[in-house]
Amino acid sequence: MNPAIQAFVFDAYGTLFDPHSIRTLAEALFPGHGAALSQLWRTKQLEYSWVRTLMHRYEDFWSVTRDALTFSCHSLQLPCTEKQRDALLDAYLRLEAFPEVKHSLERLANRRLAILSNGSPRMLRAVVDSNGLTHAFERLLSVDELKLYKPHPAVYQQAADRLKVPKESIGFVSSNFWDVAGATSFGFQTFWLNRAELPADELGVTPTAALQTLADLLP
Amino acid sequence: MNPAIQAFVFDAYGTLFDPHSIRTLAEALFPGHGAALSQLWRTKQLEYSWVRTLMHRYEDFWSVTRDALTFSCHSLQLPCTEKQRDALLDAYLRLEAFPEVKHSLERLANRRLAILSNGSPRMLRAVVDSNGLTHAFERLLSVDELKLYKPHPAVYQQAADRLKVPKESIGFVSSNFWDVAGATSFGFQTFWLNRAELPADELGVTPTAALQTLADLLP
Repeated sequence: MNPAIQAFVFDAYGTLFDPHSIRTLAEALFPGHGAALSQLWRTKQLEYSWVRTLMHRYEDFWSVTRDALTFSCHSLQLPCTEKQRDALLDAYLRLEAFPEVKHSLERLANRRLAILSNGSPRMLRAVVDSNGLTHAFERLLSVDELKLYKPHPAVYQQAADRLKVPKESIGFVSSNFWDVAGATSFGFQTFWLNRAELPADELGVTPTAALQTLADLLP
Repeated sequence: MNPAIQAFVFDAYGTLFDPHSIRTLAEALFPGHGAALSQLWRTKQLEYSWVRTLMHRYEDFWSVTRDALTFSCHSLQLPCTEKQRDALLDAYLRLEAFPEVKHSLERLANRRLAILSNGSPRMLRAVVDSNGLTHAFERLLSVDELKLYKPHPAVYQQAADRLKVPKESIGFVSSNFWDVAGATSFGFQTFWLNRAELPADELGVTPTAALQTLADLLP
């Protein structure tokens, strides 16, 4: 039997906040290409975070997000001006929370809650505040302190250290299977938030549990 | 001015051999879905190689390739039997070389040539032999010895060590921009083989030169 969970730690992008909520702005700027731009931007953002960590060339998530957007516009042959690029980037500071997030976090208000994210401290502060969640979390933990992106084990260790909770007593929640895989492999109890009912990635790791919405986290 | 190149080191998949040459078989097995399966399979194969290295859970490239195929079939809702899966995997051992590869390597026959690849030793041996390139390379170097995938710098270091050539005197050739980025960052002279005229990835690294075909490597 698993030990009692002393703290819940949440991934941010894709889990609490919807990276594809920029689609509306992208579509307004580049009619007919909003969905494709949003999709490629996110894919490249993750790819760059992984390969930069592997090749020991960390840049913070704001830079990685900007670079991924620049590439995506080139790749899709969208003539993105600097002003348009900045508008899309700024929208990342105000991504919308998924619909059930606020209410679900309120139900967990008597628990210790933190965020552990690739996002830079400024990005995390902004997106949390813009969604009225300023007081929901005791810590907003960023990989920026370590200059390594998820799913490097040092990132998950940092959360256990900062919260002073043994890793097996942390409940980690993410919609990104590769993030859940890293956290499971590290030793957290893990909850794969699978809103879109996607198949599990084949990474040799099984999360503790799967959830369909954040509301399922506590019965 | 760059020092003279003492050895050329080639990436395998995407550079010498076309991972999408399995598309015909994929299309025969799953009519209407060959291109999508081929694309997603390759994307996931790379993703798994990166996140497994980051989370310290290396499995060899044969396993990663099989797992990526399994996921891709699930994701595209293709009812792939074990026999079909094995047929697709086996095709990976006989990927077709790009059209200009054989002739271009013959023109370089008086130079030291090696492969440095994510592929397992068995995979590399098979694909090289099946393309009649058995005697073209003095070494087939696999990341499998290190249990780390590209673009980790130790992979490129291994090539310099095994060939006993200073890194700045190695000419590294890859079609995969992230691989060229890792090799450039490590200190090789690099040639980005950009057959499809793709935009460069935004990884803060500029290759030594770009080529449109392998025939451009030597004037």
